[in-house]
Amino acid sequence: MNHRISDIGEFNLIEHIARIVGVPTADDIIVGIGDDTAVLRWDAETCLLATIDAQVEAIHFQRDFLTPEALGHRALAVNLSDIAAMGGTPWLALVSLVAPPETPVAFIEALYTGMQRLAASAGVAIVGGNMSKGAHLVIDIAVLGRVARRHLLLRRGARPGDLLCVTGTLGDAAGGLQLLLNPTLPLDEESRRPLLNRFRTPTPRLAESRLIAASGHATAMLDISDGLSSDIMHLCRASGVGVRIDAARLPISPALRPLAAHIDTPAWHLALHGGEDYELCFTLAPHAVESVAHRVFTTTGTPITVIGEIRPAEEGCLVRTPDGCETPLEPKGWRHF
Amino acid sequence: MNHRISDIGEFNLIEHIARIVGVPTADDIIVGIGDDTAVLRWDAETCLLATIDAQVEAIHFQRDFLTPEALGHRALAVNLSDIAAMGGTPWLALVSLVAPPETPVAFIEALYTGMQRLAASAGVAIVGGNMSKGAHLVIDIAVLGRVARRHLLLRRGARPGDLLCVTGTLGDAAGGLQLLLNPTLPLDEESRRPLLNRFRTPTPRLAESRLIAASGHATAMLDISDGLSSDIMHLCRASGVGVRIDAARLPISPALRPLAAHIDTPAWHLALHGGEDYELCFTLAPHAVESVAHRVFTTTGTPITVIGEIRPAEEGCLVRTPDGCETPLEPKGWRHF
Repeated sequence: MNHRISDIGEFNLIEHIARIVGVPTADDIIVGIGDDTAVLRWDAETCLLATIDAQVEAIHFQRDFLTPEALGHRALAVNLSDIAAMGGTPWLALVSLVAPPETPVAFIEALYTGMQRLAASAGVAIVGGNMSKGAHLVIDIAVLGRVARRHLLLRRGARPGDLLCVTGTLGDAAGGLQLLLNPTLPLDEESRRPLLNRFRTPTPRLAESRLIAASGHATAMLDISDGLSSDIMHLCRASGVGVRIDAARLPISPALRPLAAHIDTPAWHLALHGGEDYELCFTLAPHAVESVAHRVFTTTGTPITVIGEIRPAEEGCLVRTPDGCETPLEPKGWRHF
Repeated sequence: MNHRISDIGEFNLIEHIARIVGVPTADDIIVGIGDDTAVLRWDAETCLLATIDAQVEAIHFQRDFLTPEALGHRALAVNLSDIAAMGGTPWLALVSLVAPPETPVAFIEALYTGMQRLAASAGVAIVGGNMSKGAHLVIDIAVLGRVARRHLLLRRGARPGDLLCVTGTLGDAAGGLQLLLNPTLPLDEESRRPLLNRFRTPTPRLAESRLIAASGHATAMLDISDGLSSDIMHLCRASGVGVRIDAARLPISPALRPLAAHIDTPAWHLALHGGEDYELCFTLAPHAVESVAHRVFTTTGTPITVIGEIRPAEEGCLVRTPDGCETPLEPKGWRHF
């Protein structure tokens, strides 16, 4: 009876909490707990999006692995990615910083400099926050965004027959983390740099998101933060569908292949389970794939790849490995507890 | 050159950060960093309010001192109080929880139960959040609220000649903390309980705030979180005024007097410097005091007390002690670093 958080895991705990909090009944709350952001009614045409996310020292990051500028960038980027996951445009941020008193002022300044640089480039204003003393660094950021109601994309909405798509390439951030954990890996600089950058300063896919949402053809979307194999489960559960992912089609960057070979792990494995890429994963009616992919690529330079298909729920969640076997998809991404 | 946060203190650090972040130029941002909440344009008549605040284990609270229900209540209450400080009505909350994996699930459930109870009573919906692993418990809550633009009250706006007023009584939470730190203090149960309650489950002054704001006569407002002697400085600086506080007029509860005697501290000292009362401190044109105080008291049961007067900036910030001496006001409230 005396369960601990680690016994039941994050998602069971969230279900417990959601029961306590209840389903909001106010008609200005469109989506409460359970998507990448909360969705509120702004006016007849517009929704307000609201999200909060923390970066915790020694859990999400080690100071050795990141410059303070990169840490500031990253802490904001993960929230902007949640806004992107809804098809939205971020608007403003509130930053709550918990820091040990012995933290150098220069460290905090560099952290905010990195954060502000990304904020400015994304059109986001940092309008407030809070500073508290604490034993470890914790950066909690709440971001508000907006989206036209007709462009809003939720985790629910995917239908059997839709194609499963992702932006960019997968597994790079996991590759970057491997390089930081094993600095002696003999990888050339040309491969090393893009992987490290993907881990250190992820790029929220804001422009891509708006184009996908505005196409009117996407049926569901989320961002890949914990890892595709974990995050796709949220989409399937929310939409009441199954999925078949084709591992051979997972988009792999040229830099990831040599890294994968060095650590003796198939690259598709890193792409399927590695977290922190902050790419978008979304579902499209098959007839729309070509036009949406073309539009996104020509406007942003980011490729769109079809990686599988939404199936009826009773078929479950499967992955077809490159050798042609179909096996149940196991969520092996980041586990919070 | 290698300053640490503890060398320069919270308010200098916030100034550093505000310089990095810059002044928002978007015309939908009415107030950025520097008030109790950020103030955003919702539509022609309405402002959106946004705030974030953290409660950190071992800094803001010790688990021994609070039930988990009280901790949940308190973490939300401090944010609702910030919305009250603007004259606003809270709308929704996002909760980011950092917790050690060995935390009992029952603890987390009780924490959210306390939070949800206050949320429901204040008409606030908890619409989202985040769970992360960490060595210490950190509860970060972002709250959004709304206020009619003509009722918005900022820290700036106080004018020489305005009277300085507070809701309720001051020093009770500091008294409650003294009781927790010195459990053997021989105070009777009748005095003990209200002081402990004020510390453990502070009541954000939401109804009072709306009446004060709707009166149209208040010129500036904030909530007392760090302690009156610290918080009043923010109001004076933002308004470009001085103040004279009359210590003999500080409202003291019947429960605080015997506690103050036991710890050999003047009660007015606890009222002036003690933090965490979450009362409202505001300025009123003298002619309006009677009607506003009457309205607030008859509607909510909360007394309003005039505790001093706004003076020209060149007169500085003074306190007249009960023996009739005027001395410079020294901010002796809670220091974050």
